[in-house]
Amino acid sequence: THRVLDEDTESILALNPRVKTHANLHSTASKKNEKKHWKRNPERSCDSCVNLENNFDDIKHTTLSERGALREALRCLKCADAPCQKSCPTNLDIKSFITSISNKNYYGAAKAILSDNPLGLTCGMVCPTSDLCVGGCNLYASEEGPINIGGLQQFATEVFSKMGIPQIRNPELPPAHEMPESFHTRIALIGCGPASISCASFLARLGYDNLTIFEKQKYIGGLSTAEIPQFRLPYEVVQFEIDLMKDLGVKVTVKERWGGCHILPTHQQSNWWGVCGCSAPVPMEVAKDEKCEFLPFLSPHEVIMKDGRVVGLRFCRTEQQDDGTWIVDEEQIVHLKADFIISAFGSMLNDPEVKAALEPVKLNGWGTPEVNSETMQSSEPWVFAGGDIAGLANTTVESVNDGKQASWHIHKYIQSLHGNTVSTTPKLPLFHCAIDTVDISVEMCGIKFPNPFGLASAPPTTSAAMIRRAFEQGWGFALTKTFGLDKDLVTNVSPRIVRGTTSGHIFGPGQGSFLNIELISEKTAAYWCKSVAELKADFPKNIIIASIMCGYNQADWTELANMAEDSKADALELNLSCPHGMGERGMGLACGQDPELVRNICRWVRKATTIPFFAKLTPNVTNIVDIARAAYEGGADGVTATNTVSGLMALKADATPWPGIGRGARTTYGGVSGNAIRPIALRAVSAIAKALPGFPILATGGIDSAESGLQFLHAGASVLQVCSAVQNQDFTVIEDYCLGLKALLYLKSIEELHDWDGQSPPTIRHQKGKPVPRVDELIGKVSISVAGRLRLILKNETLCVPQRNVPKKPIPNVKDVIARALKHIGAYQELDNTEQVQALIDPEMCVNCGKCYMTCNDSGYQAIKFDPETHLPVIMDSCTGCTLCLSVCPIIDCIKMVTRTTPYVPKRGLPVNPVC
Amino acid sequence: THRVLDEDTESILALNPRVKTHANLHSTASKKNEKKHWKRNPERSCDSCVNLENNFDDIKHTTLSERGALREALRCLKCADAPCQKSCPTNLDIKSFITSISNKNYYGAAKAILSDNPLGLTCGMVCPTSDLCVGGCNLYASEEGPINIGGLQQFATEVFSKMGIPQIRNPELPPAHEMPESFHTRIALIGCGPASISCASFLARLGYDNLTIFEKQKYIGGLSTAEIPQFRLPYEVVQFEIDLMKDLGVKVTVKERWGGCHILPTHQQSNWWGVCGCSAPVPMEVAKDEKCEFLPFLSPHEVIMKDGRVVGLRFCRTEQQDDGTWIVDEEQIVHLKADFIISAFGSMLNDPEVKAALEPVKLNGWGTPEVNSETMQSSEPWVFAGGDIAGLANTTVESVNDGKQASWHIHKYIQSLHGNTVSTTPKLPLFHCAIDTVDISVEMCGIKFPNPFGLASAPPTTSAAMIRRAFEQGWGFALTKTFGLDKDLVTNVSPRIVRGTTSGHIFGPGQGSFLNIELISEKTAAYWCKSVAELKADFPKNIIIASIMCGYNQADWTELANMAEDSKADALELNLSCPHGMGERGMGLACGQDPELVRNICRWVRKATTIPFFAKLTPNVTNIVDIARAAYEGGADGVTATNTVSGLMALKADATPWPGIGRGARTTYGGVSGNAIRPIALRAVSAIAKALPGFPILATGGIDSAESGLQFLHAGASVLQVCSAVQNQDFTVIEDYCLGLKALLYLKSIEELHDWDGQSPPTIRHQKGKPVPRVDELIGKVSISVAGRLRLILKNETLCVPQRNVPKKPIPNVKDVIARALKHIGAYQELDNTEQVQALIDPEMCVNCGKCYMTCNDSGYQAIKFDPETHLPVIMDSCTGCTLCLSVCPIIDCIKMVTRTTPYVPKRGLPVNPVC
Repeated sequence: THRVLDEDTESILALNPRVKTHANLHSTASKKNEKKHWKRNPERSCDSCVNLENNFDDIKHTTLSERGALREALRCLKCADAPCQKSCPTNLDIKSFITSISNKNYYGAAKAILSDNPLGLTCGMVCPTSDLCVGGCNLYASEEGPINIGGLQQFATEVFSKMGIPQIRNPELPPAHEMPESFHTRIALIGCGPASISCASFLARLGYDNLTIFEKQKYIGGLSTAEIPQFRLPYEVVQFEIDLMKDLGVKVTVKERWGGCHILPTHQQSNWWGVCGCSAPVPMEVAKDEKCEFLPFLSPHEVIMKDGRVVGLRFCRTEQQDDGTWIVDEEQIVHLKADFIISAFGSMLNDPEVKAALEPVKLNGWGTPEVNSETMQSSEPWVFAGGDIAGLANTTVESVNDGKQASWHIHKYIQSLHGNTVSTTPKLPLFHCAIDTVDISVEMCGIKFPNPFGLASAPPTTSAAMIRRAFEQGWGFALTKTFGLDKDLVTNVSPRIVRGTTSGHIFGPGQGSFLNIELISEKTAAYWCKSVAELKADFPKNIIIASIMCGYNQADWTELANMAEDSKADALELNLSCPHGMGERGMGLACGQDPELVRNICRWVRKATTIPFFAKLTPNVTNIVDIARAAYEGGADGVTATNTVSGLMALKADATPWPGIGRGARTTYGGVSGNAIRPIALRAVSAIAKALPGFPILATGGIDSAESGLQFLHAGASVLQVCSAVQNQDFTVIEDYCLGLKALLYLKSIEELHDWDGQSPPTIRHQKGKPVPRVDELIGKVSISVAGRLRLILKNETLCVPQRNVPKKPIPNVKDVIARALKHIGAYQELDNTEQVQALIDPEMCVNCGKCYMTCNDSGYQAIKFDPETHLPVIMDSCTGCTLCLSVCPIIDCIKMVTRTTPYVPKRGLPVNPVC
Repeated sequence: THRVLDEDTESILALNPRVKTHANLHSTASKKNEKKHWKRNPERSCDSCVNLENNFDDIKHTTLSERGALREALRCLKCADAPCQKSCPTNLDIKSFITSISNKNYYGAAKAILSDNPLGLTCGMVCPTSDLCVGGCNLYASEEGPINIGGLQQFATEVFSKMGIPQIRNPELPPAHEMPESFHTRIALIGCGPASISCASFLARLGYDNLTIFEKQKYIGGLSTAEIPQFRLPYEVVQFEIDLMKDLGVKVTVKERWGGCHILPTHQQSNWWGVCGCSAPVPMEVAKDEKCEFLPFLSPHEVIMKDGRVVGLRFCRTEQQDDGTWIVDEEQIVHLKADFIISAFGSMLNDPEVKAALEPVKLNGWGTPEVNSETMQSSEPWVFAGGDIAGLANTTVESVNDGKQASWHIHKYIQSLHGNTVSTTPKLPLFHCAIDTVDISVEMCGIKFPNPFGLASAPPTTSAAMIRRAFEQGWGFALTKTFGLDKDLVTNVSPRIVRGTTSGHIFGPGQGSFLNIELISEKTAAYWCKSVAELKADFPKNIIIASIMCGYNQADWTELANMAEDSKADALELNLSCPHGMGERGMGLACGQDPELVRNICRWVRKATTIPFFAKLTPNVTNIVDIARAAYEGGADGVTATNTVSGLMALKADATPWPGIGRGARTTYGGVSGNAIRPIALRAVSAIAKALPGFPILATGGIDSAESGLQFLHAGASVLQVCSAVQNQDFTVIEDYCLGLKALLYLKSIEELHDWDGQSPPTIRHQKGKPVPRVDELIGKVSISVAGRLRLILKNETLCVPQRNVPKKPIPNVKDVIARALKHIGAYQELDNTEQVQALIDPEMCVNCGKCYMTCNDSGYQAIKFDPETHLPVIMDSCTGCTLCLSVCPIIDCIKMVTRTTPYVPKRGLPVNPVC
């Protein structure tokens, strides 16, 4: 029922990212083709046998620590129509999960991964990414090279696994006992490999509740478990994924005879094979570590026997001719000794008993079933196949996709048997867990916000169409761009929105700040009032607040407030704070810097309207609390804190400013937004909340994630306005914010995770992301170097599948966390200078950079020694706990501040009061 | 005559970075040993033949663009006692040159490089860095991996080469005609390779002016020119370095017969050979591109002949035994066809004529001269050798170092012949050019500052010893940490200085902000007055400003100001702005937010003292100009703008703040410093400068480089105070700041560089840092892909040696540039909204990320189309020039804002004034 956008805009937006409501579905065959469309992949795959022997891109030397993951995620450009996603067999929305990692929303990332790939952790570890997602990365065009996507995928899913939270059925489905009979159809999956696990997971998410996987081996996981080395894919990883599948009621029976005729006949309604199709890439770096040697360009020629035993193998060289063809040259011989010869090929179907059981399924020339590559259906409509046996998948992730693909067509087939049709657009449910069910709605001034995140009155709300799209993506509320009376209409200058220089010489997205000299809306009040009315009609559950601005004139404020109220806006925001341009007309911050004017304007608006209204405050005042109090006294229902900070962003080397307008390169002071001003906004929000308890605050200023949003809630805000973070990316970040906030609230109720900071687990002591052992665990087991440094880095770090955690106390809602931090904030005199700390350095995590040492020397108290042999820093008792060392240490938690055990005695230099 | 530090501090500081006054000097032999001390190198070099065949770390696929260089330089930790430097044969101060690149001071970087390595550009391109500097990088311990040091070295020296500025003699030397006779000694260098170029350069820097290099080939550069492929080391690179050498008067004679007996006898006093010792590593990646194939573990066994011609080669396999030894197994044979066999070995000395000419120099078993590995002296004291022939160097950089080492000992030898002794500590002069001679002193209030950079009253001036060290490093002035009367003595809490979260989740140095709740000095006024007196006595040319603070009380201010003046401080700074703690005592910002109080305090101090004094202002006011004016009216000689911005940095997920004091985790609002507040400080400085022309301003707030410093000068400041940038690194950054400012001033006078932005050259159109060709240059020459994208990336980007540029107008001094930007800054109404711009995208530089498209859609005007085939964005006429696209584009200058050619008509949405 939403109004359609005009055609031009529709076409422009065709490739624009959108929030997913369902998992993607593309056949492996079509993805193989689609991948080639991405220009950076085909370049490398053409002459594969020449290039592959030296291509180690897909080898994961390292596990990513949280620091490493955050840095790598920050580097990702989060591209439009991202080639990584297009190059992934499961079409995983990689840009989104990396966005979530950037924002410390690890559950959000894991959800995005597991939604499209139930074996997301396995694939993060074993995917040949250089030929898939990473192969497409646009950053190949830059010197820094592509993103370590597999590492990030592994990181996010590992963190989620440590949360210990089970998968649940799609909450939108009716309870199992209310599901139609067709969903109780018995479905058998043969072989518990990646394809079956994937297929069963998706069928269970669709609502099927009678799923059994039959596995002939004693173990489950298929080749992932059987043939990928433990150091590359620990068994626990597979177990974690199978557990998630079992959470949905899928049964697994092991030690059954594969393909036994006992199974097929008894499950004739709908059977399906999934023989795992894992063919992970040769782990070449690891093989090298193991002293394996690779001899390329050789064709086996003759096995040399002696006394009935193998003693060697003779090869001929293969050589490329000038015309590009390859020949085997029998004149060029390589003779190698060998005790054993192992031939490595994919799985085959050659057990006669199995073949017999398969009848009447048609087999092809390779002896495997003929399969429809779109539906994964065999010649028998009730038999589907995926993985190795289906002949399409070469990798684990492709097997996963086979299973995913088959699940939809099994669903379609079963429903057709029951006379139902399914939607023509495939709709596989996403991954869900209890976190998704957390209620993050919040009420403020009698207005129910579906979630606390909205768009500030700013560039992302330049037009009604943009607000419309924002609501479609999930934003809880939106401010209109500020509008005024027709007599106050404005025309912008350009350039007017520039990148911040506050984070250093970083180009691209992720700007730590922006500066703008954009004015209020160029559109008329009539446009905005009509738009508000239409938006309200189309999105009744979303909240629309009209942002208005006038000069210091009661008649004007009354007229404009009335117009806005008549449009059915849920509330008004009075823009008393725009830092540029409007002030010169006696508007914006010209009004908002004087409590008297603020009080009067609020009184006028209070008199004119019945709906709630909020005064948007400027931080460019001596005491923002005075202004907030004036708004309160004037009858405002709350305040927005804060507008942008007045600033001059940058001057070029020739003394001209940026932005510079026209030939004269003229500028004016603009508004600084983004993370750079977050400390100012956090201060303003908390100070107002302390001074005026219960007075609602809409926070804005550097909210770029659920994590930073929660900080503002804790500081006393009720709802959260966003602008710069959208400028850096797009509207879809709302999904990450909502999920992230749900996760932060949910985790507060899990006692077992009390040592986590939000979604960040306690830092594992590590180097290069890999855990380092404790010295006491290793004494006598490893050599310790002369310098006292441990050389060993554990290879087999294990991922223990954690206990499942259940909330033992109620999950807080948004209201419960508002203003929780205020009790910690107060006057300096309330701080206790007898409770002091000192730095403690973990030598095992130290990377020997000596930053702690340098800053302590030149900006601190010269209390760190740096060992010239080991290059390890040592904290001395003269440490005053200033914390500079921790502040510049590149490794999270390598330095900790611990309670000082001796009294702190300041060094006064000279005693008091001598003659100077 | 400087006072010594106490012993403990001395020992702590032993490894602390210091500004270099001379190039380092270590023999190649000692460096080979020293390198092994750095733990990450030996690990890889032990089993070289196993690992090297797959080790491509030293292959430079890419040239770094400015963006790439800035990003990589930012990533460098700038370690203490940095292993990169220790692993470089020339002991190049890598951390310092990378710091300069971070700060956009490319001359500073080039100077650091060329000072230790006159072939710095060549070595940046051909060094086997993975075995040298990069091999030692501490970032090997992190997931991100080591820094691309070679790429950065190449980038900085290339930018400098484009400046076209000649090398000059050490300005501290007397003119050539006043040099002692010994410096006119004729010195011959045989063979114009890296060792000779290096040796001659250093001898010339020492003051020798009769140096001739004799080269038997028609070209110069030795193996660098002859045998390294042009795509790896273009000839222009060598020419650039030779030109710099020739700038110092070194003569080069080509086509002479090598080692001719004509030369040796006529230059008997002091001759020296330099046979270039370049043995660059096999360029394996490039070789792979050229379809070269590498067959490891083979030992040549037999050349197979047919009809008198080579037809093949037979090898035996070499295999490692269980005990680690290697054997050649004749039973395992590899037979290859071959038309040619080329054996690759190093240079040899085998021309009988040459051997004869060398007499009486003693040769060793290899037929090369016996050389003292410390002095590079042969058996004949007047003959020195370096490079390949000396038997020590395996690489270009080691040959360079041989020449460097020899230069000092030749100097020593020559001086000894004249009865002079040289210093026992080697002192080779640094690289110099005209930039070094720029005067950056500045006078303010009758005080002469040697340079405009000083330390703010902040953690880096916690003690007098720290100020002392800062002066020794080159800081022009320092504020003391703020001190008060004994009755106001303070004791700090801890933790109290924390990292900023304003640049995202970045850990380590380069923090975009800090927050502190540190109070004024814990030391007594007596200590500080005594310290000021001592510092003034020891550093008469440096400026010391005493920072003082009292409550609002005339007697106190009078007493404290008198004490400080008596200590002989050059000036006073009144701290009226500390944002935390002190305000509660009626001090700091409690005084500084009220113009009346500021005016009165200034009047009291004016009355009490005769020396200049400055009021340090807080930005936490509605209008900082009002406060500055009050200070002016009160008789202050100037103001410092600004102190830190009041803020709350961060709350953890459990709602506790950081820093949190004691068990209660209590906090108070602190002061935000660093780049995050730079726009606020720039605004404050420029607004005060406009309102009070000529009233001196000391700027502070995010000054972290010469480039940002110049912005503050342009905005109206006279001198510049630094704190956060030192906290991020160390005192030595002052060298970079001074050199950077000299370069920025010097370049203003070079008309040929009018299109540079400071030290940044115009962006070359590139991908992956490599230039992309213009379409019109390529039509008919290369295939253009279906998608219309050019596939070709030029391999042979050439580095043309630019014309030498000479200033045609006077070089401005600091005074000349102060307040130059003010004419561009004014009211919004002065901006012309008829002069508009629109975005223009360069498709050749585009990396297809679509960030422009996304931000235009969700935060702009939906004016960018994104081609689903080519993934190229296209700007439409509806572009309003807002500049968001450029602001988030990851590639510098891929998007430009160009003048709009049609009138701009805002979209009003609905006409004005209908009934709503």
